[in-house]
Amino acid sequence: MSSTPVGAQPPTSAEREGRVLDRIDAFRKRRPRLLETVVTLAHGAGGKSSAALVDSVFVEAFRNPELEQLGDSAVMGLPSGERVAFSTDSYVVQPLQFPGGSIGNLAVHGTVNDLAVSGARPRWLSAAFVIEEGFEISLLRTIVADMRDSAAAAGVAIVTGDTKVVGKGAADGLYISTAGVGVVPAGRVLAADLVRPGDRVVVSGTIGEHGMAVMLARGELAIEADIASDTAPVNGLVEALLAAAPGTRWMRDATRGGIGTVCNELAQSAGVAVVLDEQALPVQPQVLGACDLLGIDPLYVANEGKFVAVVPAEESDAAVAALHGQPLGAQAAVIGEVMADPQGIVALRTAFGGSRIVDMLVGDPLPRIC
Amino acid sequence: MSSTPVGAQPPTSAEREGRVLDRIDAFRKRRPRLLETVVTLAHGAGGKSSAALVDSVFVEAFRNPELEQLGDSAVMGLPSGERVAFSTDSYVVQPLQFPGGSIGNLAVHGTVNDLAVSGARPRWLSAAFVIEEGFEISLLRTIVADMRDSAAAAGVAIVTGDTKVVGKGAADGLYISTAGVGVVPAGRVLAADLVRPGDRVVVSGTIGEHGMAVMLARGELAIEADIASDTAPVNGLVEALLAAAPGTRWMRDATRGGIGTVCNELAQSAGVAVVLDEQALPVQPQVLGACDLLGIDPLYVANEGKFVAVVPAEESDAAVAALHGQPLGAQAAVIGEVMADPQGIVALRTAFGGSRIVDMLVGDPLPRIC
Repeated sequence: MSSTPVGAQPPTSAEREGRVLDRIDAFRKRRPRLLETVVTLAHGAGGKSSAALVDSVFVEAFRNPELEQLGDSAVMGLPSGERVAFSTDSYVVQPLQFPGGSIGNLAVHGTVNDLAVSGARPRWLSAAFVIEEGFEISLLRTIVADMRDSAAAAGVAIVTGDTKVVGKGAADGLYISTAGVGVVPAGRVLAADLVRPGDRVVVSGTIGEHGMAVMLARGELAIEADIASDTAPVNGLVEALLAAAPGTRWMRDATRGGIGTVCNELAQSAGVAVVLDEQALPVQPQVLGACDLLGIDPLYVANEGKFVAVVPAEESDAAVAALHGQPLGAQAAVIGEVMADPQGIVALRTAFGGSRIVDMLVGDPLPRIC
Repeated sequence: MSSTPVGAQPPTSAEREGRVLDRIDAFRKRRPRLLETVVTLAHGAGGKSSAALVDSVFVEAFRNPELEQLGDSAVMGLPSGERVAFSTDSYVVQPLQFPGGSIGNLAVHGTVNDLAVSGARPRWLSAAFVIEEGFEISLLRTIVADMRDSAAAAGVAIVTGDTKVVGKGAADGLYISTAGVGVVPAGRVLAADLVRPGDRVVVSGTIGEHGMAVMLARGELAIEADIASDTAPVNGLVEALLAAAPGTRWMRDATRGGIGTVCNELAQSAGVAVVLDEQALPVQPQVLGACDLLGIDPLYVANEGKFVAVVPAEESDAAVAALHGQPLGAQAAVIGEVMADPQGIVALRTAFGGSRIVDMLVGDPLPRIC
């Protein structure tokens, strides 16, 4: 019931609709802007501030059609007509090792996954290391072995690299930057502007394990829970999905900023609304418990082996069945639907029948997660 | 004259030759090995220790044919038969700005040049930023503008990127990792095993400006000199060279470790001797003066806009003339010759008619130069 002041007339249905539209207009105007004069941790958290920094500093300076897609990868046409995808990420996670993986696993999976969700078959990686003086070579070997194992599991080769050493105190142990090149099969096109009202939103598995595992591994929280990072390569899953649901419109891996941020990027770039169903979200009970204790929304917690796909409604059963057929996709689910309006907005239908707007991540709840 | 002890017989010519060969054998056995248990600044200096770390940690773990070439780029064959080159570098230079350029210029030129000397036409770059909390956004914009200008001058597009922010004290302001993809024209092959005795060694210009400019910019030395970094894209020069000297065997850009280290890599990977002529080395007088004052050999000082090429003797005049026709190649010169023996050795014929072995760089005279 609306809280109409005593004595006033209750608003008509048209008035109520007008107010909702006003609220949405106001919301849309809150687009990222860069107001700060120095870089803050929030600029690296994958949410609104990150978008503002990227838009106003990097995209502004480098302008070109591939970059402006702001996808996980750029897709480039070669003189032969063949298409390759190209992607990069730096990894600064702390701690360097955590339940379920290490910075080495992340550095391979992250770039493999960025290529895979752009429709490419990942083939080759580069790896550039910034190492703090005094770093244990035995630990470096362990992390490099994790990279080797992850690359083997994903079917990619690490073909070129670089090593820089900085003095004590000029890095936090080890940073790794990987870039990757993949081959886009002929005829395969994934793009936000292919998304249509009525399409279904699919997630490839449970959400939030990676971010929560890293937070707990820092030992700063007074809770303990048996949560391991989900870090894994999704290229096999993506191929299974695309074989079963060839009409798939768009995919994105849900890392920094989580599912909530990815769905906002989808809503904005496709000019649609995304309505998620809270009860359909696959979340491990221990992740949900830790999120509850910490007051964190699992929609914003990072994953490192999960992706969101938009598929035509008539292919959604086949898509989920194909994912269920893969070990990494056992918990895949349809979690929502694309609607025409209100454009640019993500809403969550809650378990209690209400709904709320899922904004882009603001601030910096989870720094140095990847 | 040899210092034969009084009363002993002077060695015969054959004995003397035997001693020289023994010394060379002993030298060859001093191959890089990794003896340390922690990473030191020397591991990042581009010399023997770097080679040991790369060999024993990275190549050992990642083994694949592309990586084992240990070139500046990996060259990969696509399903269509087209070939692309792929390269990466991290940039950690201090200070971030110096006479002649900034970390932004280096980050673009370094990767463009690595692609170019592998015979590729550089096309696309990625850029990943690790930024320390509190970094001035105005300085970030300046550095990003340098990247934009360098990319435009080199004819490449920065198509994908990443931004991470780390806390105060977890980085030295800003680190940039770039990777690049270039297209290798059909039929173009450059490789160390094409190098033959009698080939000429060409350098594209004066050596040592970049390393010396950065050292002086640190303000830790009691000397002043008007030296600007040579940071520049060499892809135009490389195309001019290859058009004029289509038999060109091999190229490498002379960054960390300088010309001395590059020639050692050539001698070892091609199984030849490289004999350099000290009087032919183009060095600016102010660089030579600063090197003399500091006791540093300009052969080991980093460049960021110069490369070494091996060309057939009969094409060397055309090669140098083509380089002289380009603004960046005005000081290009033939600086030496490839010989069959002693394999793996670089020697310098000095101005006084003597000669000395030019070893790989040992230790860490010039950290954080790029």
